[in-house]
Amino acid sequence: MSERDVPGGGAAARPGPTSRVRVRQLSGLSARDRRDDLATEEPLEIRLTGPGGAGRTVAITMRTPGHDFELAAGFLHGEGLVRAGDIAAIGYCADADPPPESRYNVVTVRLHVPVPDLPALDRHFLTSSACGVCGSASLDALRERCAPVPRGLLTLSPGLLYGLPPALRAAQGVFGKTGGLHAAGLFSPSGTLVAVREDVGRHNAVDKLAGWAALDGRLPLAEHVLMVSGRTSYEIMQKALAAGLPVVCAVSAPSSLAVELAREFGVTLVGFLRGERCNVYAGAERVSV
Amino acid sequence: MSERDVPGGGAAARPGPTSRVRVRQLSGLSARDRRDDLATEEPLEIRLTGPGGAGRTVAITMRTPGHDFELAAGFLHGEGLVRAGDIAAIGYCADADPPPESRYNVVTVRLHVPVPDLPALDRHFLTSSACGVCGSASLDALRERCAPVPRGLLTLSPGLLYGLPPALRAAQGVFGKTGGLHAAGLFSPSGTLVAVREDVGRHNAVDKLAGWAALDGRLPLAEHVLMVSGRTSYEIMQKALAAGLPVVCAVSAPSSLAVELAREFGVTLVGFLRGERCNVYAGAERVSV
Repeated sequence: MSERDVPGGGAAARPGPTSRVRVRQLSGLSARDRRDDLATEEPLEIRLTGPGGAGRTVAITMRTPGHDFELAAGFLHGEGLVRAGDIAAIGYCADADPPPESRYNVVTVRLHVPVPDLPALDRHFLTSSACGVCGSASLDALRERCAPVPRGLLTLSPGLLYGLPPALRAAQGVFGKTGGLHAAGLFSPSGTLVAVREDVGRHNAVDKLAGWAALDGRLPLAEHVLMVSGRTSYEIMQKALAAGLPVVCAVSAPSSLAVELAREFGVTLVGFLRGERCNVYAGAERVSV
Repeated sequence: MSERDVPGGGAAARPGPTSRVRVRQLSGLSARDRRDDLATEEPLEIRLTGPGGAGRTVAITMRTPGHDFELAAGFLHGEGLVRAGDIAAIGYCADADPPPESRYNVVTVRLHVPVPDLPALDRHFLTSSACGVCGSASLDALRERCAPVPRGLLTLSPGLLYGLPPALRAAQGVFGKTGGLHAAGLFSPSGTLVAVREDVGRHNAVDKLAGWAALDGRLPLAEHVLMVSGRTSYEIMQKALAAGLPVVCAVSAPSSLAVELAREFGVTLVGFLRGERCNVYAGAERVSV
């Protein structure tokens, strides 16, 4: 089964697996602007329909576009909702529902058999959106809920940025020996570590930090820097925005959607922060070179 | 607000952030058994209750025990469900509901205000359990749904294992340049790469592989090896079990729950597979030294 085109599909561009963005690359005390390729991250809505045509949304997950039909089939089989032989057809949404820009972000799986009991599905998927889940509706909700971060007075030197990963690693000493824990650290404007939390799930590490700040009456964290040990995706940016954080730094790469959100909300987003090098993907005006 | 003990709590052991397991460490062609510390992974159920006491489960997420109250508060605030000032108290579940072994895996957040509208919550959290979400009920469901993997005839040499990461990286060439994509590869018993898929979400990369196999009529993958570029957690093991895979290998560490599931279902689980070294956490009888 190949991924065929949308019936009646128009000018909607099909998203690719990588996205090209402009970044400011810092090396030591110098900076230059260049282009960089990021992994594309977009929501995929998986709809399930029976022979009668009546269907429903089963899941919305963030994913890199490509092999979307396989993703839908593998997800439904892996969750025990659908047997492989029950699948009659898979296609991008053919109805008029999704706006053009979301046309390739909605997949409908049509079954030979009736769709599994809906209340049971609801219970099955009563779960945490902390895992990076959202649709375009969730993106709109995020825009309603979170205000752009104020420009503020926070200015970061390259030296301050380069000091964050070693400080986070040093604080990680106790659990870090397992090699299996993500860390999230909260830093003051002068680069002092304020709090660190660890978890097998990087979204949990950030939730623990934000929860500490919430219970301690410290929100919003308008003058703080968040540093995470892994990558930056939609979910991390969403949590940073909710906490009012103006700067997010990561040891690894951001996703395309993380960069989009950072630019929309005025957040400074730093990636590949290793040694005396990093890339600034958004909000470079807070970094003084 | 500190994490206080369970009222009337008995002998239930409180889980720690790390778990000690026995592993077989391979180095070149030699092997020795030793102890290793893993990040603990267990489900956390977050319950929300109003002044009247009537409450409901809002989310179940896999996490590393520790700072659980902060995790609950940060999650609820980050999702826009609760304002920090609305929280009256947070505690481990005080009722008789959870069995002793789950006592520290259920957190109740009591609000000064009524719990937000429930149908809205349902919609909000209609999402993908592909993100590693489950409770002990989901663990039981997994046991009902997935059979132990047959012992089979599959035998793996150390050399075969050491060849998997370079083969996966070579196949990742196209997207790998972004540094932001997880890869999952399916290998034949002789170590030949059969298929590779990539995604910003490692659970999606495995779903895409399993979906390819499902749509191609290849399930169960009883004689194949799964190799993933990151860590192995509950979610990856769940998907491997659903696909009938007898061997799961990873570049990084497994979680405690991944090891438990591998042992329970007879899966060979390999971690820290780098160069000519690796750790075998379960099913070492399939590895010939």
